[in-house]
Amino acid sequence: MQKVKILECGPRDGWQNLKRVLPTEEKLKYIDGLFACGLESVEITSFVSPKSIPQMVDAGEVAHYCVEEYPDKELVALVPNFKGAELARAAGLKNLTYVISVSESHNKANINRTHDQSFEELRRIRESLPELELCIGMATTFGCPFEGIPTLDKVLHFVERIRSSGVDTVYLADTIGIADPTQVRRTVQGIRGNFPDMKLQVHIHDTRGMGLVNTLAAIEAGVDTVQSTLGGLGGCPFAPGASGNTATEDLVYMLQRMGYDTGIDFDKLLALSKEQHGEIDGVYSGHQMNITAKSPCC
Amino acid sequence: MQKVKILECGPRDGWQNLKRVLPTEEKLKYIDGLFACGLESVEITSFVSPKSIPQMVDAGEVAHYCVEEYPDKELVALVPNFKGAELARAAGLKNLTYVISVSESHNKANINRTHDQSFEELRRIRESLPELELCIGMATTFGCPFEGIPTLDKVLHFVERIRSSGVDTVYLADTIGIADPTQVRRTVQGIRGNFPDMKLQVHIHDTRGMGLVNTLAAIEAGVDTVQSTLGGLGGCPFAPGASGNTATEDLVYMLQRMGYDTGIDFDKLLALSKEQHGEIDGVYSGHQMNITAKSPCC
Repeated sequence: MQKVKILECGPRDGWQNLKRVLPTEEKLKYIDGLFACGLESVEITSFVSPKSIPQMVDAGEVAHYCVEEYPDKELVALVPNFKGAELARAAGLKNLTYVISVSESHNKANINRTHDQSFEELRRIRESLPELELCIGMATTFGCPFEGIPTLDKVLHFVERIRSSGVDTVYLADTIGIADPTQVRRTVQGIRGNFPDMKLQVHIHDTRGMGLVNTLAAIEAGVDTVQSTLGGLGGCPFAPGASGNTATEDLVYMLQRMGYDTGIDFDKLLALSKEQHGEIDGVYSGHQMNITAKSPCC
Repeated sequence: MQKVKILECGPRDGWQNLKRVLPTEEKLKYIDGLFACGLESVEITSFVSPKSIPQMVDAGEVAHYCVEEYPDKELVALVPNFKGAELARAAGLKNLTYVISVSESHNKANINRTHDQSFEELRRIRESLPELELCIGMATTFGCPFEGIPTLDKVLHFVERIRSSGVDTVYLADTIGIADPTQVRRTVQGIRGNFPDMKLQVHIHDTRGMGLVNTLAAIEAGVDTVQSTLGGLGGCPFAPGASGNTATEDLVYMLQRMGYDTGIDFDKLLALSKEQHGEIDGVYSGHQMNITAKSPCC
């Protein structure tokens, strides 16, 4: 059976979009639940300014807990800058994500930096904290609200620049949920062909309902790891009702039906989603939760 | 550009699941809207007992209108029996759908007939109304609530029996929304390989969020036509909140982004969905409608 690694990023990308700030206790219980389902990789938090994202004020506490309880799991945190990387390292983490948008105008709008400034900060992190394993989140890989769809050449040059910075892992983010399967295949194959030793992930938003189809296109084109969030949390806080990320339970269901080995217990995962997301009404966008005893019907 | 034919079946499979009985006027306006978007094939109604499905009491009137107004379009109606076929023929229709479940226990539960009885009724329709073009809806092709997932052999024998009845068009229905892309490819390729002149369609429910991924799998495996419903209407009236069919607007968006020619004006289609489905609250499950001016976000 072919293996697929799923990186659950709900505790970061999902929770940061919630109105209600989750108490730390609740977060830790949720994270316990994720690992109990067999997940091996979880993005547990982000070390960002609590002023901009109050939800992540307990990043250090969450990280400490996970390092203590789950030393053998892949514990990932997002950091926006050198300071965040230092805090994450101090909390005992080894795997960090750092985001740069392929589109420079989006990078400016999102984190107020030029490409040069972003790569300079990356250099600083790399040089000062060489023991960290970094993954660069390539926002707007498949489309940008300001610049439209980047050419494959532009994407390849961007990967080249990351490679030159000494980082060998990237995730291709469909920030605005606009990718299509043909584009995903072309992009993944293009990067694979030009950078055969690069480790590739995808982070697909389900905005237009293409979460599963694009994630599968990426797997079949050869990515190592796919990101998703339990319950489809996350995505866009500005579009009420709009979908977030690809839902982990939908993804696991599909992959296991197809014969892939995800290492995850689907029934436990679905039970966890139902248990946890009853309290986070209105943001759930996975499909599995709606399947009741009365269905399936004719 | 490769063409894909989309058969919109909202006026049949979508509306039959609504609580509110739509006035005929409203139906005709909706159907006008569909054709104005460039759709070439619409399942406009079903000739069933008004006692079991009151929503379809005006089947004759709807059919007469469409035959008059859209003589060059493919106008499809579902019929459960010989009497329905006679009524459809009398209303001027040429393209009919007749459903038999691959699983006999489901066929019994759904329409209270054995396979032999269903095929006997089919023979009667074929012999008495040979001018009709029939398509057999193969319910439970990918899974049955009573018998589980049929073997490919069972599906192929079922197609063989349909072929022997003189019908050369079938649609593979994922009645309980359980198919996965691997199964869809294997099934379509299996039928294609054994019955190269058979015309194949799919009718995919989005129950588990796999509507697009399975529909695309079918297209890439070689089906001629895919069915869907505007707004994702339909599916299962017994599971509140559960998704219905693959949403036509989501499908058109994806296919056009991939470079397929659907002949449909996406912007018009989305506008129609927004205009029509504001009044059918709670059953809409397409994704495009949630995309507001404020999104896409970061």
